[in-house]
Amino acid sequence: MSAGSPVIKDLSLPFDEAQLRQIAEDFPTPFYLYDERAIRENARRLKRAFAWNEGFQEFFAVKATPNPHILRILAEEGFGADCSSLAELVLADRAGLRGESILFSSNNTPASDYVQAKQQGAVLNLDDFTHIDFVDHQCGGLPEVLCFRYNPGPLREGNTIIGKPEEAKYGFTREQLFQGYKTCQERGVRRFGLHTMVASNELYGAYFAATAEMLFEIAVELQSSLGIRLEFVNIGGGIGIPYRPDQSPVDLERVGADIEKLFESMLRPAGLHSLRVLMENGRVITGPYGYLVTTAIHKKHTYKEYIGVDACMSNLMRPGMYGAYHHLTVMGKEHAPTDGVYDVVGSLCENNDKFAIDRPLPAIKRGDLLVIHDAGAHGHSMGFQYNGKLRSAELLLQSDGAVRLIRRAETLDDYFATLQGLE
Amino acid sequence: MSAGSPVIKDLSLPFDEAQLRQIAEDFPTPFYLYDERAIRENARRLKRAFAWNEGFQEFFAVKATPNPHILRILAEEGFGADCSSLAELVLADRAGLRGESILFSSNNTPASDYVQAKQQGAVLNLDDFTHIDFVDHQCGGLPEVLCFRYNPGPLREGNTIIGKPEEAKYGFTREQLFQGYKTCQERGVRRFGLHTMVASNELYGAYFAATAEMLFEIAVELQSSLGIRLEFVNIGGGIGIPYRPDQSPVDLERVGADIEKLFESMLRPAGLHSLRVLMENGRVITGPYGYLVTTAIHKKHTYKEYIGVDACMSNLMRPGMYGAYHHLTVMGKEHAPTDGVYDVVGSLCENNDKFAIDRPLPAIKRGDLLVIHDAGAHGHSMGFQYNGKLRSAELLLQSDGAVRLIRRAETLDDYFATLQGLE
Repeated sequence: MSAGSPVIKDLSLPFDEAQLRQIAEDFPTPFYLYDERAIRENARRLKRAFAWNEGFQEFFAVKATPNPHILRILAEEGFGADCSSLAELVLADRAGLRGESILFSSNNTPASDYVQAKQQGAVLNLDDFTHIDFVDHQCGGLPEVLCFRYNPGPLREGNTIIGKPEEAKYGFTREQLFQGYKTCQERGVRRFGLHTMVASNELYGAYFAATAEMLFEIAVELQSSLGIRLEFVNIGGGIGIPYRPDQSPVDLERVGADIEKLFESMLRPAGLHSLRVLMENGRVITGPYGYLVTTAIHKKHTYKEYIGVDACMSNLMRPGMYGAYHHLTVMGKEHAPTDGVYDVVGSLCENNDKFAIDRPLPAIKRGDLLVIHDAGAHGHSMGFQYNGKLRSAELLLQSDGAVRLIRRAETLDDYFATLQGLE
Repeated sequence: MSAGSPVIKDLSLPFDEAQLRQIAEDFPTPFYLYDERAIRENARRLKRAFAWNEGFQEFFAVKATPNPHILRILAEEGFGADCSSLAELVLADRAGLRGESILFSSNNTPASDYVQAKQQGAVLNLDDFTHIDFVDHQCGGLPEVLCFRYNPGPLREGNTIIGKPEEAKYGFTREQLFQGYKTCQERGVRRFGLHTMVASNELYGAYFAATAEMLFEIAVELQSSLGIRLEFVNIGGGIGIPYRPDQSPVDLERVGADIEKLFESMLRPAGLHSLRVLMENGRVITGPYGYLVTTAIHKKHTYKEYIGVDACMSNLMRPGMYGAYHHLTVMGKEHAPTDGVYDVVGSLCENNDKFAIDRPLPAIKRGDLLVIHDAGAHGHSMGFQYNGKLRSAELLLQSDGAVRLIRRAETLDDYFATLQGLE
């Protein structure tokens, strides 16, 4: 994209009403639909933005969209997986990701999770100084490679970048970080990485360069003070996406170029030019390329106008949980005047089960298909079964145009599974 | 309880450390533990408070604790079930509840749910005027009995009671209510109920009498204007519980007595003395009598002092989702000085996964058992599997002192169930 022409959120859809009705004949709404072609194009764009770094790799934050079919697509594009639990480690394995294609970034970690991660050969990213001994004891020794998560706390550079990191449960202090590298070096660990986290869903691109700068500075100091040459810095994830139509996406090319400049000015002079830059984004990788498709099943007029849909908060928690905005398209009415104002609601017995409040939309009829945008990350994965609601299917709109079921909808048997044999 | 001696939250536990360690040997933490004896005593107390009303019945809000073993205990105490979805209807059936022991109070209801409810003979509580025709068409006719949910909207009495009911998605307007009874009477419905909802988790007892007054007034007017004698009014649920140690429980006896006075002054003179008063509480029925038991697995010192436990937000969403306070007891240190100040955290990769923030507690060691109070409602039922976390087991501490598994913990197979055959 060229400077001076701000890119506004892309509201286009990879399907039209006729195609979606055809899909909905085979798979009843509500369902998730992921756009393989767009996911691949976007993955390639991120890689190009960091192509200046030979060892660059993105480790997809599995929690965003924990579906092995999605992980496989991303693995084909060269991505690894960032896992945070035993189940996510097994999921990554099922998707074919092996060894150091997996980064295990957890906190308050149970022993069983570390054991599993070490068995799979994943890179352990420790969240706390005490976890060095914990891993040593629980896993029968320290691995060859270790990464530590840094929390800058009340330091100036931290405050500017992350908000209030001193109130976050994550990471080592700076002093613990240097102690950690020193003791692990003495105990035979040979390869090291460094990680930090930035604000979640951040649209201000300069944040990411500032994070990289903070880590690069530590990399230089680690070499000069302890003689440790970091193998990689994981500058974290957190690149946001524009949920609102008037928001702009992060300029990935610019973020990549800004970080390249810092790399050249800070690391190359220190002889650290082989340092790998890693990221662990979730949202920006799949978020805009997943849609929650739902049908209007009721119209209600009381003190406001309501459209009831067959999806609910169980399918997508963000609006109810955070008051988050998700754009809505009424299929077949993409260009119709928005002469209605609706609350679009689910059926949960919670008054926050609303996908939209006071939203100007075209006049909606029962039976209309509604598409909820930007549901491709932290969508299905955050669903619950509260009120006895079941989680929906996930479909993949393949690059070849075919549609494939990649997760079936839950059934009553799933809901009752943990009660079987106990009644 | 006698006037003038305010009752403060009961912090006592129905088990000591030795008993809990014994239970934890058979069932690894984290787990839920429900106190059958206390649930039964509390159920009887509610019934006594409304014993002046011959037809009084509490319909337990299943969503609070959707476990058939809990429903069965409550059914033995004479409670019905308030269901809001197809799965909850099936659950109530599995617990042995039949016909009008089930109230079906849903909103934006799918046709399939109404069909199931009518098949089970449940009392349908309609949320919207348009649902009269919807049920008629979808279920092959209207049932013999119907209840309507009233939303007072911006009317004065509504505002005082409910906050901003005109922004709630629920219920009929007053005009729609009268139209609804009239048309259903003409279409052969013979028995009628009336329902409304009050604020959730309300500790101010006078709210409930005000709600009853609002409904009693409508009952009288319905008789005089349409000649309809309501069979019951469901004054809703929403009785709160004291989560904080300095809060007092709602005085159920006083609420019952206040509503009795209104009943005598408003309904008896109108000849409506046979009207049944119903309630549909969840939280106050089981909330204080369920505990989430968890083990301290990590201690972390950075900018604050952290205790990491083996439960997380997936087991209990309220602190992370609402910032809700839940009291904590460190077992074996019930009377120890609170000379530590801790954040008690789970392992989710979300910084809001904290059961307590800056909480004064006795000094905690790894291996200590922590009990999270007031988790008996909207606890397990709101759990999710985000981050690949699994939901815990539910145990019943029976009245006879034995411990019974009433829901097993989830396994990886449960987590992967909807992917099977698709990989």
